[in-house]
Amino acid sequence: MAFLNDNYLKLRAGYLFPEIARRVNTFCETHPDAAKRVIRCGIGDVTEPLPAACIEALHKAVDEMGRRETFHGYGPEQGYEFLRHTIAQNDYRDRGIDVADDEVFVSDGSKCDCGNILDIFGPENEIAVMDPVYPVYVDTNVMAGHTGPANEFGAFEGLVYLPCTTANGFVPEIPAQKADIIYLCYPNNPTGATATREQLTAWVEYARRHESVILYDAAYEAYISDPAIPRSIFEIPGARNCAIEFRSFSKNGGFTGLRCAFTVVPKSLKALARNGERRPLHPLWQRRMSTKFNGVSYPVQRAAEAIYSPAGKTQVSELITHYMGNAKILRDACAQIGLDVFGGTNAPYIWVNTPPGIDSWGMFDMMLEDANIVVTPGAGFGSAGEGFFRISAFNSRANAEEAARRIVAMDF
Amino acid sequence: MAFLNDNYLKLRAGYLFPEIARRVNTFCETHPDAAKRVIRCGIGDVTEPLPAACIEALHKAVDEMGRRETFHGYGPEQGYEFLRHTIAQNDYRDRGIDVADDEVFVSDGSKCDCGNILDIFGPENEIAVMDPVYPVYVDTNVMAGHTGPANEFGAFEGLVYLPCTTANGFVPEIPAQKADIIYLCYPNNPTGATATREQLTAWVEYARRHESVILYDAAYEAYISDPAIPRSIFEIPGARNCAIEFRSFSKNGGFTGLRCAFTVVPKSLKALARNGERRPLHPLWQRRMSTKFNGVSYPVQRAAEAIYSPAGKTQVSELITHYMGNAKILRDACAQIGLDVFGGTNAPYIWVNTPPGIDSWGMFDMMLEDANIVVTPGAGFGSAGEGFFRISAFNSRANAEEAARRIVAMDF
Repeated sequence: MAFLNDNYLKLRAGYLFPEIARRVNTFCETHPDAAKRVIRCGIGDVTEPLPAACIEALHKAVDEMGRRETFHGYGPEQGYEFLRHTIAQNDYRDRGIDVADDEVFVSDGSKCDCGNILDIFGPENEIAVMDPVYPVYVDTNVMAGHTGPANEFGAFEGLVYLPCTTANGFVPEIPAQKADIIYLCYPNNPTGATATREQLTAWVEYARRHESVILYDAAYEAYISDPAIPRSIFEIPGARNCAIEFRSFSKNGGFTGLRCAFTVVPKSLKALARNGERRPLHPLWQRRMSTKFNGVSYPVQRAAEAIYSPAGKTQVSELITHYMGNAKILRDACAQIGLDVFGGTNAPYIWVNTPPGIDSWGMFDMMLEDANIVVTPGAGFGSAGEGFFRISAFNSRANAEEAARRIVAMDF
Repeated sequence: MAFLNDNYLKLRAGYLFPEIARRVNTFCETHPDAAKRVIRCGIGDVTEPLPAACIEALHKAVDEMGRRETFHGYGPEQGYEFLRHTIAQNDYRDRGIDVADDEVFVSDGSKCDCGNILDIFGPENEIAVMDPVYPVYVDTNVMAGHTGPANEFGAFEGLVYLPCTTANGFVPEIPAQKADIIYLCYPNNPTGATATREQLTAWVEYARRHESVILYDAAYEAYISDPAIPRSIFEIPGARNCAIEFRSFSKNGGFTGLRCAFTVVPKSLKALARNGERRPLHPLWQRRMSTKFNGVSYPVQRAAEAIYSPAGKTQVSELITHYMGNAKILRDACAQIGLDVFGGTNAPYIWVNTPPGIDSWGMFDMMLEDANIVVTPGAGFGSAGEGFFRISAFNSRANAEEAARRIVAMDF
């Protein structure tokens, strides 16, 4: 008699984005005329084509795969040296951050990495997440059996939720209690907040004091334009002893459909075995990736490498400028009608207070019905997201401008 | 204090293929002249370029990614409809096998799927593996905490090992004891054995009697030429209630470096929840893939689709003919010098008895030193692999012919 993983039965049936899709579909079916006007500012998916440098690299690599002399079969599970080196050099060492090539693990996505990283940790850990939170952090912990059931607000027993509020600028206070593993995401999805050097330093000090591990999701680091804001947790002294960093090519190079990301696991990072020994986590992740993964598609790794070429850097910078231009247009529109607006300056997400008396799903419905704009209700990211909604800046300029016009014309 | 996953510490330090690589490197460094002659028949990696139909599909899809109008961002986590439909139609329904499009889950590799599938099963299951065994089945169960420590032969406490021997034709007998999850791999890696319809029927009957789940790895099904041999577990009546099937484009289309595979989870397959309810596994795998995976690269999915085009089918068939031609040459050479040879007729692997008095690592060393041929020692796949070695037919024709000449010239 085969047993299933009972932890899956604790998950809430409706994952946020399918529920949004369901409501949008229902609206479109019942309002065929308005359906044509719908502008999607919900899911954080890019809209612009891949950089030309990546397209060129892909064609070249595809041709290599078509000739016996240059064909590539199984690659290293952790990524090709050419890409690991390029990443470590450009994203870290050129910025004065100590990361070795073989501390970079190339993967097919940050969502995968954020979920899979739990494989190398034991069940004893106390897990802390920000609230509002990217649902993958929570759901993967539920699946792994690290939680009890959910309460009526969708919060899971056994997880430590760190409220991110207007008062703390959406950077949680250092908790009084101990947490063994802490998920931090900056620039933040969904709030668009960034963390200052001082705030991250406090977190690193906390983690070192408790020998905790920070899982630092920096998927949106390319959107940081303020030079004072850290782009990597490893800019903070001591972080090599307490942090793992996740990065992605999805939002800088627009690889959401091409699939490439990476995770940095410093060799100096240790965790506790049951016999009391402190052991490095790097060999565990190395083993995990060797055993349960077979490397990223060769042409895709060449495309990722091209992001770091001079042409690639210019083209990525143009993409960021484009999306951040949208962010400014959408921010200004929300501010113009008197809404409190956060994020959207060093992040592609704008986090907006709902008007008084309207909750976040109410605001979702109103935006869809009155302005034909799809946003993401804050409550979908956790109870501290109630009273907010998220607008994504990933769109064409024309759509962003039209969405802004409709927002300004809204009547609360 | 963060805790690591102690189960990783039970894993044996030397995974088989790294150990082979180490010995080959040492030999090449100490024998620079012989190093130039080394022919690798060890790892099962393809050598021929991708089919032209796939190259064409890749170029076309890359061009789509370079234009806003045809750009593809996030795809469905379970794979695009065009590919799920093409697979279900061609590999199953056209052969009279009942598989729905949405029972096909497209992934980036069978190794990943074979490991990740454990996510949806509980810790209570009794796990059975064939011996010799593809090491990933064992190691992922060790990582998941389903075993005790390894004994001196590398066998893990708590796993049921099903010996595959010359006597049973490398298809294990139905065990007297109960097993909840059974890994079967046909055509087999490493033995090259196939299972008859009667043998698979007996396994399906066993699984239905015990409400067990068969994890059926059919990564090498394209190498079956005998029409009497089942290519899918779902050819066996009742299998939709007790089996999950893994397939790959690695060995038919040569996608080892491109990365695409799929898993079929029938909606009729159930497992037991702790409350005694029997629940379908399909929604659990759907949820797993939605939460911890983000779909396969769009151009790669288009390349996989092209495998099923008329041109693609012809080109894949030529690849299979090529590799199976090598298999015959290598089989005949081993037989010519009096070795007992198995497999290599409906599978790209040849499984050979070592000569009397030579164990499998001894044979590995002898083949490397005397003939400069890299093979895989049978003991690396489990204790029942002792006394055998594996030769892979994945090579150029010239290399296969040269390897055959050297084998024939060997002197035991």
